[in-house]
Amino acid sequence: MIRVFICGGSGYTGCELLRILSNHPHVVVTGVTSEKSAGKSVVELFPNLRPYSKLIYEPLQVENIIDKAEVFFMALPHAKSQAAVHDIFSKGKTVIDLSADYRLRDVKVYEGWYGVPHRYRSTLKKAVYGLPEIYGKQIAAARLVANPGCYPTGAILGMYPALKNKLVDTNTIIIDSTSGISGAGRTSDIRFSHCEVHEGFKAYAVTTHRHTPEIEQELSVIAKRDIKVNFTPHLAPFDRGILTTIYARLKKDISTGKILDIYKKSYSGEAFTSVLNTGTFPDVKNVRGTNLCEIGLAVNKRTKTLIIVTAVDNLTKGASGQAVQNMNIMLGFDESTALDAVALHP
Amino acid sequence: MIRVFICGGSGYTGCELLRILSNHPHVVVTGVTSEKSAGKSVVELFPNLRPYSKLIYEPLQVENIIDKAEVFFMALPHAKSQAAVHDIFSKGKTVIDLSADYRLRDVKVYEGWYGVPHRYRSTLKKAVYGLPEIYGKQIAAARLVANPGCYPTGAILGMYPALKNKLVDTNTIIIDSTSGISGAGRTSDIRFSHCEVHEGFKAYAVTTHRHTPEIEQELSVIAKRDIKVNFTPHLAPFDRGILTTIYARLKKDISTGKILDIYKKSYSGEAFTSVLNTGTFPDVKNVRGTNLCEIGLAVNKRTKTLIIVTAVDNLTKGASGQAVQNMNIMLGFDESTALDAVALHP
Amino acid sequence: MIRVFICGGSGYTGCELLRILSNHPHVVVTGVTSEKSAGKSVVELFPNLRPYSKLIYEPLQVENIIDKAEVFFMALPHAKSQAAVHDIFSKGKTVIDLSADYRLRDVKVYEGWYGVPHRYRSTLKKAVYGLPEIYGKQIAAARLVANPGCYPTGAILGMYPALKNKLVDTNTIIIDSTSGISGAGRTSDIRFSHCEVHEGFKAYAVTTHRHTPEIEQELSVIAKRDIKVNFTPHLAPFDRGILTTIYARLKKDISTGKILDIYKKSYSGEAFTSVLNTGTFPDVKNVRGTNLCEIGLAVNKRTKTLIIVTAVDNLTKGASGQAVQNMNIMLGFDESTALDAVALHP
Amino acid sequence: MIRVFICGGSGYTGCELLRILSNHPHVVVTGVTSEKSAGKSVVELFPNLRPYSKLIYEPLQVENIIDKAEVFFMALPHAKSQAAVHDIFSKGKTVIDLSADYRLRDVKVYEGWYGVPHRYRSTLKKAVYGLPEIYGKQIAAARLVANPGCYPTGAILGMYPALKNKLVDTNTIIIDSTSGISGAGRTSDIRFSHCEVHEGFKAYAVTTHRHTPEIEQELSVIAKRDIKVNFTPHLAPFDRGILTTIYARLKKDISTGKILDIYKKSYSGEAFTSVLNTGTFPDVKNVRGTNLCEIGLAVNKRTKTLIIVTAVDNLTKGASGQAVQNMNIMLGFDESTALDAVALHP
Repeated sequence: MIRVFICGGSGYTGCELLRILSNHPHVVVTGVTSEKSAGKSVVELFPNLRPYSKLIYEPLQVENIIDKAEVFFMALPHAKSQAAVHDIFSKGKTVIDLSADYRLRDVKVYEGWYGVPHRYRSTLKKAVYGLPEIYGKQIAAARLVANPGCYPTGAILGMYPALKNKLVDTNTIIIDSTSGISGAGRTSDIRFSHCEVHEGFKAYAVTTHRHTPEIEQELSVIAKRDIKVNFTPHLAPFDRGILTTIYARLKKDISTGKILDIYKKSYSGEAFTSVLNTGTFPDVKNVRGTNLCEIGLAVNKRTKTLIIVTAVDNLTKGASGQAVQNMNIMLGFDESTALDAVALHP
Repeated sequence: MIRVFICGGSGYTGCELLRILSNHPHVVVTGVTSEKSAGKSVVELFPNLRPYSKLIYEPLQVENIIDKAEVFFMALPHAKSQAAVHDIFSKGKTVIDLSADYRLRDVKVYEGWYGVPHRYRSTLKKAVYGLPEIYGKQIAAARLVANPGCYPTGAILGMYPALKNKLVDTNTIIIDSTSGISGAGRTSDIRFSHCEVHEGFKAYAVTTHRHTPEIEQELSVIAKRDIKVNFTPHLAPFDRGILTTIYARLKKDISTGKILDIYKKSYSGEAFTSVLNTGTFPDVKNVRGTNLCEIGLAVNKRTKTLIIVTAVDNLTKGASGQAVQNMNIMLGFDESTALDAVALHP
Repeated sequence: MIRVFICGGSGYTGCELLRILSNHPHVVVTGVTSEKSAGKSVVELFPNLRPYSKLIYEPLQVENIIDKAEVFFMALPHAKSQAAVHDIFSKGKTVIDLSADYRLRDVKVYEGWYGVPHRYRSTLKKAVYGLPEIYGKQIAAARLVANPGCYPTGAILGMYPALKNKLVDTNTIIIDSTSGISGAGRTSDIRFSHCEVHEGFKAYAVTTHRHTPEIEQELSVIAKRDIKVNFTPHLAPFDRGILTTIYARLKKDISTGKILDIYKKSYSGEAFTSVLNTGTFPDVKNVRGTNLCEIGLAVNKRTKTLIIVTAVDNLTKGASGQAVQNMNIMLGFDESTALDAVALHP
Repeated sequence: MIRVFICGGSGYTGCELLRILSNHPHVVVTGVTSEKSAGKSVVELFPNLRPYSKLIYEPLQVENIIDKAEVFFMALPHAKSQAAVHDIFSKGKTVIDLSADYRLRDVKVYEGWYGVPHRYRSTLKKAVYGLPEIYGKQIAAARLVANPGCYPTGAILGMYPALKNKLVDTNTIIIDSTSGISGAGRTSDIRFSHCEVHEGFKAYAVTTHRHTPEIEQELSVIAKRDIKVNFTPHLAPFDRGILTTIYARLKKDISTGKILDIYKKSYSGEAFTSVLNTGTFPDVKNVRGTNLCEIGLAVNKRTKTLIIVTAVDNLTKGASGQAVQNMNIMLGFDESTALDAVALHP
């Protein structure tokens, strides 16, 4: 059994890691940290996590935890993750960081969007962007993975085959996403209280969301040219899931069916992408609690535009499920281990 | 007191008309039709409509109802409205049609998107498109108003000042909308049952929604050139409201503040448009049950794109509230009569 | 125009008071207090309250506000209301207190359940319990009204005719209630965040809820004997509304129809109670945003038990609507003024 | 591998059976019937059921299906199940019936409440009531199990230790339950459409719900005396789960702690009952998608009443999960096989 440890386990991504790992036959969770909830039991915060009835939150002190595990999941807030990741990685451990701190390769871009300096540039250079459908080989060889953001996961997987196959004009990409409330994290902020968001729907962080440079970085790598996108997130009154609707002008006449063939070929052999048939589009309800990314698309002939729609669970494929997928790849397990659950319906 | 009559009053737009009119000091509802529910009381279907405790649904037979009112609201399904509107209008009555049958001026466009012939072309020519913020004068002089669709209301009001002031490249318009479940109507279709849509979110009718030509017709009139748009509707698990996020490439450098000034000026004096300040964006929750259209916007300098967000209640400003607004204008009442309620919160 | 003032207007009951009063033809709101939000505009907190675009929260200082109005609504937290009510009442103003501080006539009961001393016993003696369907005459003559709690409103109105007519064994009363999330107030408490309560349902404060003595006080007055009840509140994932299901053993054989007759007679002439016909039961959806209390009931012949179900909107009939109803009675206005809105559906 | 077959697999309990069985290492689903959806694929109805991509609904014809499996789950509507269960059981197969047809031992009670004759009395006598926490031994020896109703599961498990230990007056039992919308089944009935139930809450089938005699039968067996109960179900706007709040007068003074000890002892060794500590009560959110029954309780000293609250997922422990639990027991597998998933949170 591989020992794994979770730094920052009192949020929803920490809870989701514990849920998924409870079903993993080859690992055991040896500890979990939380500054605010240190001393409390995991089950006190999350009554659903019954298999962890003896697990108690402890404060994050590297010297106390470093010998407890071979693999560390870091689910700390942005900026706070930098040093902890560096310290633990420096001591030879395998690290999967769910924060944004090691995702952006260009330090200036990171510092511009996040407003804090990056103090660990040499460690940053060793991080692999943890989107397995694109970086599978590098992840298998890595000891530090920067787990993608929730919005970027759905956006990049939606655009990857189109860009790789040069189907669209890269100056015309519009990414319009909607997230459930859990995207805001486990927070006492009144803006996410039931009465404020129920029966509501709105855009937020219009033109300013921090996942924008992450999406642009990865799309630019795929397209081998500098890409800027319009990215607008919305907040909807459901708990889990992100639906992303992407628009891009086609460079030539091509049918929906042919593009679907390209997508299916591009993702053949992948366990967690599901390209839907013509006329069928994703629903976040279909991927709840799963590591799947559903993809549907259509060509608008009248406007020569490709419209791609993807659905992921922001806490699973958009965070903790993908982190476990990365761990599986890094440790040489079957990629789907502990990730093959069927979604609840309803 | 003006007598008004509702043809097709067992759906949500009929219910909403009755709700609003119950608060109108100058009109009285003299009857309401429903084929399926003929003989039942209105309160049996809609327990909230207590002031109509004596109102019974009757079948739609023009000869039986024509003398009962001066004003007829037509809330019939598309295609079924054509003849009834024509018959009642021909007898000299004032008609406000909530269906799509008299909205599209080009009969070929109507027949192409709706798949049925239009048999009343001369009547169609007399219909005024009932968006008061644009066609106020024509509505005041009209006896037949084609009440706009729910999506077009939010889309057109969002684009009107930008197009009128030639701010954007008309070839780049993307309209991405999300509607609550009541947009599907009062229906026993299993696709809109609670368990199928709750905790779900999806796109539908991608590239094929029938409100597309209506939006294009009106944007083209404003811009004085032929406009094609990408319009993608989504379905979200709330009851009421449509949020529309619009993207269009700017033709020149201009700040968010200046565009907001243009919007505020363009809508000055309007009772039902609310242009929000910089950094503030609409929420469907703020307009529930009201006739308001909230509008927010931002310029994305990095992509030279204008992003406009509008919120309406699909049943009120997007249907029955706007219908009453049109009636008020046509009859010379204050435009806001019966339409000044404050939204519930929460 | 009567001038009214709201002390504690940044919660949901304050927001609801402002919503209802915006529609009142005979009063004008001259000010509103909030310690936390002093200096902010009302519209900043509640974008729905557009008619109050110039109203700014101010701190509660009696000397600054006392001359601004004739009528004061007090929507302060329990215990904090005591002194403010006393001070304002002592200066000759009309006061409607939405807190619990002046509801319990027995100071010991108050102090036992609320854990704080009551320092204004002489003022307490002048307070009338503001349930108009029972205390209408006293309210008309009062200058201080203690507005009932949300749960007690639905429970007492459900039991009143049964107790008054001695239909049930007073030792067997079970009151089982379910409230929407707004019952917890406008709070950043994580326990009421969307992700914690959505798709959830639970009982809380089992055997310990503070509305228990209030219910018992009033039922005892009606029955003219000391009554103890089992009262269990539940929390459900909707915004507004309380449904209360009451069980009591019948003292003799009597049919559902006869009891309904007794209820209808008991409430004849009341504007805000609606006794439903046999086989029909209330739904909180039917009373959203209204001042109505819907009542349905059935006799279980097999167990000789009367089952009564009531629905109120906790913010309207259960708080601010009833407060305005009380104000209307105290000032001699028609009881229904500003309270006759039809509920939204859906 | 044991072959299992599902008769009636297009409803939510059928879908839930397939979801759970997809995770079962010792069985394989060889077929599933649906009259309405015959010829359609399972994935077409339920996109979440991806592992069954090749499974097609077929009509129920006993001669065609009888050789396809050793175990048959029957998820047919009440009354329709009678003959099918009899036919398949008669041919020597193991049958788990999720309908009500074989639950009530007294044919007259069945016929009185369900309004249809029972034609298979000899088969009925062989059926074991499938509540494993009470009838585990009989289930292990049975070849026909009548799987309990969703409400009875939560009600009986809540009352079992109290009745067995003679703690309460059996004439005073009140059972007040609330179910999510999936309790109504997968139906196009407009009464369960999103817009009709969202933001709603109501009681239904007051005094007349068909689960009443089932609850009474089992409570009477436990208490060894004839018991009549008041049972009132409510409908709340969430998808899954039943919360049941039970009231019964205590026969003697006893503390909450002592009763909890009795409950914990009574259920010691049980995998799927979770008795909570003093002051902690169940939430349906904690058991979503799991086979757990959470139980909390409190003594109301003022009224000498025991208040018990239980939570189950109506589709899992209340239906399909319990059916698989029964199958595991009947076939000699570990009782928890395929049933140990951790609930999603949020």
